Amino acid sequence: MVTKARRKLRRIGRPAGSPPNRQAILAAARKQFAERGYDNATIRGIAAGAGVDPALVHHYYGSKDQLFVAALGLPVNPRDALPQLLAGGVNGLEERLLRRFLDVWAANRSGTLVGLVRSASSHEDAARMVREFFTHEVLERVIETLDLPQPRLRAALVASQLLGLAVARFVVRLEPIASADPDTLIACYAPALKRYLTGPLPGD
Amino acid sequence: MVTKARRKLRRIGRPAGSPPNRQAILAAARKQFAERGYDNATIRGIAAGAGVDPALVHHYYGSKDQLFVAALGLPVNPRDALPQLLAGGVNGLEERLLRRFLDVWAANRSGTLVGLVRSASSHEDAARMVREFFTHEVLERVIETLDLPQPRLRAALVASQLLGLAVARFVVRLEPIASADPDTLIACYAPALKRYLTGPLPGD
Repeated sequence: MVTKARRKLRRIGRPAGSPPNRQAILAAARKQFAERGYDNATIRGIAAGAGVDPALVHHYYGSKDQLFVAALGLPVNPRDALPQLLAGGVNGLEERLLRRFLDVWAANRSGTLVGLVRSASSHEDAARMVREFFTHEVLERVIETLDLPQPRLRAALVASQLLGLAVARFVVRLEPIASADPDTLIACYAPALKRYLTGPLPGD
Repeated sequence: MVTKARRKLRRIGRPAGSPPNRQAILAAARKQFAERGYDNATIRGIAAGAGVDPALVHHYYGSKDQLFVAALGLPVNPRDALPQLLAGGVNGLEERLLRRFLDVWAANRSGTLVGLVRSASSHEDAARMVREFFTHEVLERVIETLDLPQPRLRAALVASQLLGLAVARFVVRLEPIASADPDTLIACYAPALKRYLTGPLPGD
């Protein structure tokens, strides 16, 4: 009985003989990223979890970052957004960063980003997954591009303020930050971010 | 059978005839604060929920803020901590605030504060409760004390950075913020907080 039921469940989950589909890959990706973190998850392991060839995962999603973005439904891939933000160098970066950050959050009507902050705040696995993705795909790329002393600390300081802004505005809805217009927020936060990016730090 | 079981449960929950105890009051307080928020919860309503006289709640816990701190197991009551922080005026406030904030979080071995950030990030009710308590008992007191233009915005900007610091250091554990010593963090964040408190803002 148990074996029969299991076989049936397996058929429902992934129909035998039908072409392996994207949903199975995305589901396997979500499972692996949550269980192993972003750094340790592999295209090969995710392919195995979905019962498909790794080449098919590459064919559909390209690289691990693209698969992560698709699996979690992120509104933007940092790899696509960062080059444009960083192209102008550190000059005015704080304003470009704030405007893009607020734009992406405001446009994210499906609430994926709020959901991600909620998961990362409440589950250790989600926190690791998000932290590793963010460190690898955002912080390290910023650090590589900007020629600044203590780039890791600077990038983390900026991240901590953007995180606090996002939680205050979109999650906890603290006024007047929750209802302020983007230009006001940019004017408020830009000088602090500029200082985190280029100002003196202990240990410089 | 059901009635008998219910009677038994009621006896376990709050023994009939025994003196009404603190646990019943704290449980009723947690329920009311979560359901009605901090602003709408009343000592009278909490007393009714616990089946005791409001005078007993006042006798045990004094005022609503003290009851909230006791019910949630907060390591410090902002009403006790703020006068000392604010006594020195706005001069050096950013450093005193950062040091006290990091001290309280570091000393909070039971993890109540991390738990509170997690709840507020993931549950609408908890977010409202924390936001209202924080606005009423912290922000508004800071605003009353400091003679600054746009005090509400300034206090919220400071709060958003402290929140981001707490989430980065204690919840998501983003390096190098997670392992930095307090003096380094104070030196990094103090100039930004000082600017939020006293620097020019749009609309000044």
